[in-house]
Amino acid sequence: MRFIKRLLGILPLQYASAHCDVPCGIYDPKPAQIAALTVLKMVQKVNALEKNGDDKEAKLNYKNSLMRMIWTKEEHARKCKDEILILWTDYFKTEHLEKFPNLHDIFWKTAKLCSQNKQAINEQLAQELVDNVNQIADIFNQSQSSK
Amino acid sequence: MRFIKRLLGILPLQYASAHCDVPCGIYDPKPAQIAALTVLKMVQKVNALEKNGDDKEAKLNYKNSLMRMIWTKEEHARKCKDEILILWTDYFKTEHLEKFPNLHDIFWKTAKLCSQNKQAINEQLAQELVDNVNQIADIFNQSQSSK
Amino acid sequence: MRFIKRLLGILPLQYASAHCDVPCGIYDPKPAQIAALTVLKMVQKVNALEKNGDDKEAKLNYKNSLMRMIWTKEEHARKCKDEILILWTDYFKTEHLEKFPNLHDIFWKTAKLCSQNKQAINEQLAQELVDNVNQIADIFNQSQSSK
Amino acid sequence: MRFIKRLLGILPLQYASAHCDVPCGIYDPKPAQIAALTVLKMVQKVNALEKNGDDKEAKLNYKNSLMRMIWTKEEHARKCKDEILILWTDYFKTEHLEKFPNLHDIFWKTAKLCSQNKQAINEQLAQELVDNVNQIADIFNQSQSSK
Amino acid sequence: MRFIKRLLGILPLQYASAHCDVPCGIYDPKPAQIAALTVLKMVQKVNALEKNGDDKEAKLNYKNSLMRMIWTKEEHARKCKDEILILWTDYFKTEHLEKFPNLHDIFWKTAKLCSQNKQAINEQLAQELVDNVNQIADIFNQSQSSK
Amino acid sequence: MRFIKRLLGILPLQYASAHCDVPCGIYDPKPAQIAALTVLKMVQKVNALEKNGDDKEAKLNYKNSLMRMIWTKEEHARKCKDEILILWTDYFKTEHLEKFPNLHDIFWKTAKLCSQNKQAINEQLAQELVDNVNQIADIFNQSQSSK
Repeated sequence: MRFIKRLLGILPLQYASAHCDVPCGIYDPKPAQIAALTVLKMVQKVNALEKNGDDKEAKLNYKNSLMRMIWTKEEHARKCKDEILILWTDYFKTEHLEKFPNLHDIFWKTAKLCSQNKQAINEQLAQELVDNVNQIADIFNQSQSSK
Repeated sequence: MRFIKRLLGILPLQYASAHCDVPCGIYDPKPAQIAALTVLKMVQKVNALEKNGDDKEAKLNYKNSLMRMIWTKEEHARKCKDEILILWTDYFKTEHLEKFPNLHDIFWKTAKLCSQNKQAINEQLAQELVDNVNQIADIFNQSQSSK
Repeated sequence: MRFIKRLLGILPLQYASAHCDVPCGIYDPKPAQIAALTVLKMVQKVNALEKNGDDKEAKLNYKNSLMRMIWTKEEHARKCKDEILILWTDYFKTEHLEKFPNLHDIFWKTAKLCSQNKQAINEQLAQELVDNVNQIADIFNQSQSSK
Repeated sequence: MRFIKRLLGILPLQYASAHCDVPCGIYDPKPAQIAALTVLKMVQKVNALEKNGDDKEAKLNYKNSLMRMIWTKEEHARKCKDEILILWTDYFKTEHLEKFPNLHDIFWKTAKLCSQNKQAINEQLAQELVDNVNQIADIFNQSQSSK
Repeated sequence: MRFIKRLLGILPLQYASAHCDVPCGIYDPKPAQIAALTVLKMVQKVNALEKNGDDKEAKLNYKNSLMRMIWTKEEHARKCKDEILILWTDYFKTEHLEKFPNLHDIFWKTAKLCSQNKQAINEQLAQELVDNVNQIADIFNQSQSSK
Repeated sequence: MRFIKRLLGILPLQYASAHCDVPCGIYDPKPAQIAALTVLKMVQKVNALEKNGDDKEAKLNYKNSLMRMIWTKEEHARKCKDEILILWTDYFKTEHLEKFPNLHDIFWKTAKLCSQNKQAINEQLAQELVDNVNQIADIFNQSQSSK
């Protein structure tokens, strides 16, 4: 319940600060992290996918699953990009640039990793995306605690 | 970093279970909680909103802000409803009904609270929504730990 | 013209009742039924799809059609789920639970059938979805006539 | 149950004809009619809307309702336009032009009525939209029975 | 810079006329032309796509690319249709019908070409779409200069 | 016709280069410029909006127009942000950073201007957005001609 305490405890305090911005709601890196992990999971599931036999039904169900996994990868790569760009464009302010001089660069590279993960089925690229988004979450958390 | 450890530690384990379902990605009550808190925050901001003067510009900026807060409330009430219904329809299975006999009821009432918060500007209704979604998060967390 | 009479005749009466709810508009099970029938039709079309020859163009056009049928199945399964959940969360009220004690259960099972039909190409599952949505339409119609 | 019989009876037959087109699903004028009636209903509700008192809460709830009714009008006018344009661009074929020489004109005027109903709160304009969409439904039904 | 001059020079003038219609913004055939060219490009890319080897990774990456190209074709065919229908339903007025008597027909045929390009991978059909949208752009430009 | 020549002439050449990226289609700053100009136009229209009389109908139509102009401003500010971020994340590559050392900065400031224009009705802010997007279009055009 520690997490819900945080939600009901810290967040309302954060509201009093600049952290709630209409219409972005409440800033949080977690949706981007969930999306990045979903991209990684989809790559793993595509690589592990097997046909259940050689009949037509098995082939069609294989294609149905493959298509949906690739589409889920696409959607979550897009969502991941959208979520981190909300942080970059709305949450981070000029004062953060001194403390995090590579801020633009890490966001730029991570956004490009989202596109690269759309264009390929590559577990290493997906892991890099997860790692980069976690770096962004670290920066976000540091920017919070430094208040 | 305990949270990121959890993401990289527990979640991949969860993946091996039934918790990753294409196309729903990874189940997590937090997006619904963020959305519910945003609804509450918007009601508080609408109630606190003041005109900065009586000139035309102040009146138009007041209306611009009011409209955007009400629309953000609407959008996050909708998102909250979507997110909890993903848990109800895709995550929870028949076996959960024994452990949580009021499962259908709590989800139904919470979904109705989303609609009620669209239809009104009422801090008590918004607080009820936050409380109900936190109840759902408790049930979700119990269902996880009981594995 | 009996149907249009109904639209212009009965519906405005229904408006005076609780049947028009902003922003859900007018409750009607037909969009869910159309979506369920489209899911069934797509499964039938996928199963009936043949390549027109063995050249590259025929293969690519086969893949183009297969992809679009599977995506249409996905979209209409999603739409079907959205439409029935509007009825469950906004139209049906506590007083309906006495008359239809299995209300939650039928909606839950039907929503799960929407997800199952996304995850498979299976005509029997699609037919079950059509039948369940028609059951929901029966319940809806009974709830109307009982006024 | 006559309606469900029709769904299960006639529609599958229609499927065998050109009436099911991936990805448009099954052609039906009813969604456009529901949307047009919702536009009319929203205009009526806006005109009937009253403040429940003069305190701040009453004023804010009045604005919340007004905004949502106007937005629902906007959305359903858009949906109405989308739905009739699906019929015009995908369902109706060259052979229909002989039988319905004013086909382009009625669709064009009705689409313009959708935009006009976005731009105004005017019950007469909304009634014209309902009437035009019903004319389109008549043409659609004639084109079906003439098979 | 001639183009930006035009944007800052002519367009604001056009604003004073009926060319800016809330919520359609500013009328311009270019988005439809970009979408049509993208459909053509996607067909060309699908036809040129090759597997990079015969291993599983190469096959999956081939399928990933094919799926995304076909989906991009679908999306831009849809966007192209939406964009030209905005011009047909909102920009063109009755007075244009005298000067462009085949107005309805060219828009109808072009909209149908959008659907046909969804349903096939056919470079000739895609080129016809580009040509038709350019015809629409010519008509649009003539309707502007004739002011 | 010079513009269509450009479309059919230069663009296909550009296709052969890295400028067409699935699923982003063809890079072009114009949609962002149209969106920025629409934001400016909406601010001008809001400031110029007058009630046509003091009766209830005039007041409701004033509110209907105001709401739709503010919503169009919101939507086009969002679209403008999306469009420039496509250029920043997908079109511009590391090699551009040497030639345009302030690339990150101009995109960041412009994205923030999109959000600021959502939050206010301020013609100067809207003009700054138009100017910044035109600067981005200049950089884009320089990056093209330098090939």
